[in-house]
Amino acid sequence: MRIMRAEQFGLKREVEYGTPEQNEAAMRIVGDVKAEGDAALLRYTEQLDRVKLDASQLRVTREEIEAAYDQVDAAFLTAIREAAVNIRKFHEKQLRNSWMDLQPDGTMLGQIMRPLKRVGVYVPGGKAAYPSSVLMNVIPAQVAGVPEIVMVTPPATGGKEGIDPYILVAAAEAGVKELYRVGGAQAIAALAYGTDTIAPVDKICGPGNIYVALAKRAVFGAVDIDSIAGPSEIVVLADETADASYIAADLLSQAEHDEMASAVLVTPSAELAEAVAAEVKRQLAELPRQEIARSSIDNYGAVLMVDTLADGIDVVNQLAPEHLEILTADPMKLLGFIENAGAIFLGPYSSEPVGDYFAGPNHIIPTNGTARFSSPVNVDDFLKKSSLIYYSKEALMKNGESIMTLARHEGLEGHARAIQIRLEKERE
Amino acid sequence: MRIMRAEQFGLKREVEYGTPEQNEAAMRIVGDVKAEGDAALLRYTEQLDRVKLDASQLRVTREEIEAAYDQVDAAFLTAIREAAVNIRKFHEKQLRNSWMDLQPDGTMLGQIMRPLKRVGVYVPGGKAAYPSSVLMNVIPAQVAGVPEIVMVTPPATGGKEGIDPYILVAAAEAGVKELYRVGGAQAIAALAYGTDTIAPVDKICGPGNIYVALAKRAVFGAVDIDSIAGPSEIVVLADETADASYIAADLLSQAEHDEMASAVLVTPSAELAEAVAAEVKRQLAELPRQEIARSSIDNYGAVLMVDTLADGIDVVNQLAPEHLEILTADPMKLLGFIENAGAIFLGPYSSEPVGDYFAGPNHIIPTNGTARFSSPVNVDDFLKKSSLIYYSKEALMKNGESIMTLARHEGLEGHARAIQIRLEKERE
Repeated sequence: MRIMRAEQFGLKREVEYGTPEQNEAAMRIVGDVKAEGDAALLRYTEQLDRVKLDASQLRVTREEIEAAYDQVDAAFLTAIREAAVNIRKFHEKQLRNSWMDLQPDGTMLGQIMRPLKRVGVYVPGGKAAYPSSVLMNVIPAQVAGVPEIVMVTPPATGGKEGIDPYILVAAAEAGVKELYRVGGAQAIAALAYGTDTIAPVDKICGPGNIYVALAKRAVFGAVDIDSIAGPSEIVVLADETADASYIAADLLSQAEHDEMASAVLVTPSAELAEAVAAEVKRQLAELPRQEIARSSIDNYGAVLMVDTLADGIDVVNQLAPEHLEILTADPMKLLGFIENAGAIFLGPYSSEPVGDYFAGPNHIIPTNGTARFSSPVNVDDFLKKSSLIYYSKEALMKNGESIMTLARHEGLEGHARAIQIRLEKERE
Repeated sequence: MRIMRAEQFGLKREVEYGTPEQNEAAMRIVGDVKAEGDAALLRYTEQLDRVKLDASQLRVTREEIEAAYDQVDAAFLTAIREAAVNIRKFHEKQLRNSWMDLQPDGTMLGQIMRPLKRVGVYVPGGKAAYPSSVLMNVIPAQVAGVPEIVMVTPPATGGKEGIDPYILVAAAEAGVKELYRVGGAQAIAALAYGTDTIAPVDKICGPGNIYVALAKRAVFGAVDIDSIAGPSEIVVLADETADASYIAADLLSQAEHDEMASAVLVTPSAELAEAVAAEVKRQLAELPRQEIARSSIDNYGAVLMVDTLADGIDVVNQLAPEHLEILTADPMKLLGFIENAGAIFLGPYSSEPVGDYFAGPNHIIPTNGTARFSSPVNVDDFLKKSSLIYYSKEALMKNGESIMTLARHEGLEGHARAIQIRLEKERE
């Protein structure tokens, strides 16, 4: 693992937007499903997923979900139930009430919070199935009060028959009651525009391959979408009091995700820098996914030397990492200075996987520097606000002239007259 | 104004995404400003705005702002100050605290709310200058605590010399201290990537022409952007107790905005329908912007007949209007059933211009049916959240096995080992 001065490091990863050919393919699929509905959905499922279905087979049955429970082991079931409780509890604290502001003249202003009505969650098939991501997408929507949460996932996962049973169990534990075996751009189009079998949704979330990402971008506006996640990142800010073996393990847990993942240590301690680099080398040799992790560490990993922890904080704020761990003598002392980080893990026992799986906060977090302006998935993502204005007669009589003045300065006489006609009538 | 059954009405307006030529032009400008900074910014300002500046002239001076105060009348100044007070007061109620959840085992989880650091507000030049939009964009950012709010606007407005003084005064009243005379796609690029004169921002908001919209889309990801607003809409839900002249005036105040604007009355009362249609005709004949308003009413306006108010609510929820007025005998009774509407105005004195200019809620509201899933501009748009995880040793020892179980089920052994190395060391 290279050790360098922080000034010399520039983390820059190009986000993939797809080739023109991929974009064209995604657009064609979206257009066909929008126009033809189930017929196109089934045709693309046969063509791309190599599974021939009729419309009545799209929905996953209650029996299949029950059968999935027989295929998962008890330890998994216990663990995912514990995780679901924690995730639900954390997200419930994000809930907000509608409110009203009652004014002495009888005017009432307010903000009404309402859940979206129907949300679609995409769960990728592919090499690895992530039950934890099912919880992290579904539970915030559920806590927000979304009455209809529908999940779609490709009909067969990684050469296996049918849908991964761990995914089905995670969905059932999260409370999903409506699941369809359909994936890719065709699933996104079905969620956005609806078919005879699948009713359209208000928002689509969840990760997918490049065709899924392109299809989501294409349907945005007709429905809301979540943000497109980039490769995962961790920055560890540590001083000489930290345990090098913990830091190395945490860096590698990030690096094993993906060759584009980034794992960075920022420290003023040359001793810790050397120790972590040595530990990374040692632990890497024993890691099952060592090829992926090594590529990530070599290309996007680094130990960055700074003069002081305060300089280290500046580096962190510039990187705006998805995950930040602080392993210093007194991490709380630094917290107030962290401006940009999606999730902040304090102290030696707050290893990133604690948050990835279990503690409660969401693991879907802004990447690639976007923590500067965006947030982990949360209950607000599934709520919409409406402004409420009840203006009293007294308030209108008092403020009508000011409103007309402003309207006329903008050349909008019709706006002024909507006030004037009331003032005149009420003064009669 | 046509009167028809609600079932026969389909409000469908295509959102303009620009021609390939416009997109190419916007991309070229963005690319040039990103690469060349001030030089390209000044070149495009000369070429497109026909104003030759050097870099030292880009920033609007304090003297110019003071001079603007001499050019606006006292009634305007009073009115905009009253409006600013109301807008600030309403948005302050949207503020939220960071919070922590302290658990009995010493674990602390939380959500930290922080303002964005630097926000850019685009204010269009063009035919009409809208000081009210300056307040509606700037004040929520300011209430959120954004320390740097920078405004850009074209160097000359609608054939006039310099920047509209009402815009300058509105900006100063809202608290903007950093203004640049630059517009178009070049201004968006400068805000996104920075130049020697203009430091880059974290988020860009405010409306603009098609080149501005395309440039905003192009820089999204490097910075956050607000949503692209479509043409404005009003739906009035009314019964036989409503005053037809009020409704007609409110419909026309929307229609005068833009030929693409939409003004719709939904009612079970045939008598009211006829009376409003007649009032629209009468009032339209006297309206200064009658050509625009007539085109809007003819193409996108309608009186929609329903059997009952309950049916009317269904129509409203399907249209998901930007603005909804309810003028019925008991509007509060209906409020709980309104699922989709950006801003809801209740009763005869809550004319839409009350909210457009003065009452306090934001006038930048989702259009074109997107109130199904999005919200008026609010303080949250200028805050970002960070999750906080401080896991205690006790919590890790207790839950470590469950976390490892979940990690191993996802094939992420490195994640499990980050926990395991701690459990083993602490058990020693």
